[in-house]
Amino acid sequence: MTRRPAAQPNINTTPISIADYFKVAISVDCVIFGFDEGVLKVLLIKCNLDEFNGEWSLLGDLVRPDEDLDKASYRILKERTGLDDVYLEQVHTFGSLNRHPNGRVVTTAYYSLVNIQHHELQLSDNELHWHPFNEIRSMAFDHMQILQTCYTRLQQKVLREPVVFNLLPPKFSLRDLQSLYEAILGVEMDRRNFRKKFFQMGFLVDTEQMEDNVPHRPGKLYKFNHRKYSKLSKKALDINF
Amino acid sequence: MTRRPAAQPNINTTPISIADYFKVAISVDCVIFGFDEGVLKVLLIKCNLDEFNGEWSLLGDLVRPDEDLDKASYRILKERTGLDDVYLEQVHTFGSLNRHPNGRVVTTAYYSLVNIQHHELQLSDNELHWHPFNEIRSMAFDHMQILQTCYTRLQQKVLREPVVFNLLPPKFSLRDLQSLYEAILGVEMDRRNFRKKFFQMGFLVDTEQMEDNVPHRPGKLYKFNHRKYSKLSKKALDINF
Repeated sequence: MTRRPAAQPNINTTPISIADYFKVAISVDCVIFGFDEGVLKVLLIKCNLDEFNGEWSLLGDLVRPDEDLDKASYRILKERTGLDDVYLEQVHTFGSLNRHPNGRVVTTAYYSLVNIQHHELQLSDNELHWHPFNEIRSMAFDHMQILQTCYTRLQQKVLREPVVFNLLPPKFSLRDLQSLYEAILGVEMDRRNFRKKFFQMGFLVDTEQMEDNVPHRPGKLYKFNHRKYSKLSKKALDINF
Repeated sequence: MTRRPAAQPNINTTPISIADYFKVAISVDCVIFGFDEGVLKVLLIKCNLDEFNGEWSLLGDLVRPDEDLDKASYRILKERTGLDDVYLEQVHTFGSLNRHPNGRVVTTAYYSLVNIQHHELQLSDNELHWHPFNEIRSMAFDHMQILQTCYTRLQQKVLREPVVFNLLPPKFSLRDLQSLYEAILGVEMDRRNFRKKFFQMGFLVDTEQMEDNVPHRPGKLYKFNHRKYSKLSKKALDINF
């Protein structure tokens, strides 16, 4: 009579100790969108890891043991750009096994919308640069995937909520507003329809001021009526082009 | 002359070693929605931690060292319910410092939509139970917050994408479809407007069959035309009630 050999230990028969689970690091990565001279831009930083020598990456950092995820995102924005009152939204968490060379790092992606002209960005580093979104071809880590996911969320969001006004100065022309929507959605829009749609919604306030220093016929300047918008129970900004 | 005392070490002056960051565990928690007899339900499990003795919680588990987040979610659904072909969507990641009594556990929330009647759920455990969504008043951990976040996402989603059909049998009456929308959105809808809206979109196919064994006048049974929907470049299901 022969005894059957004991089963080889494998991932299903060897229990994982609880300590084996507590070996992950958490990071946050921020896709910081800006709008400048008609172009949608993203703030990137040179990656300082040898594995990605010279490649650009999103602004991110490990989450400290004393921080939650939102706090870490605001810290990174503050440290890198001086900004502390910006629009920030969590989008998605990326946890592929080998996405980081230094160990298992699960990262939560946020996007942020900042007005490049309005805020005096105190860029902390010469290695920070605003890149036209359409010209970004590769990045370190899985950051292209993160960028694409956040861009898709931004496209969905601008059709339903008035987040674009974070990218504009407080007073803006309809030309700039349309050009921003076109840059985000990647489409050309009919000027008359666009204006009609926005006036129908009733959220734009005529400031009775005009643009100056522009290379075209000066347009009227408008403000967005945040108070009126926030009073609506349904809060529907529906831009169904 | 007195020397100034050295600054006390604190979180800002004491550098954190890289090893201090790699002490987090990742979990996934699944909000599993079902629809049964006109009521939106959520599958919950009795929590087995002493700290939450007897409280209900979402179905979740730590993510294994060899899994990504999606894989962990599908594993939990399969282990607990026998389901392996269900709708699953990542919603949000929760990382408050003290959300778990056993250490820092950051959790990524998913929601899932399953047809309670259609699938023969092989519930692995007597401690699993379908709860009417409206009657859930408290849960272990921060699971009430996770539930609310996933419910809000579901409400937004059903207005734009045809995810509700995951909660219905393949053939359904318009009465059931309307009752499902009402349960999710928490509103009553006008029967005529609802039907008109759906017929206008052109995604419903008359199966030429009727309901049977119903306590009301049998209604026609319809199917959703997934092929027609997926062919549309814009994929807009716009249910703006």
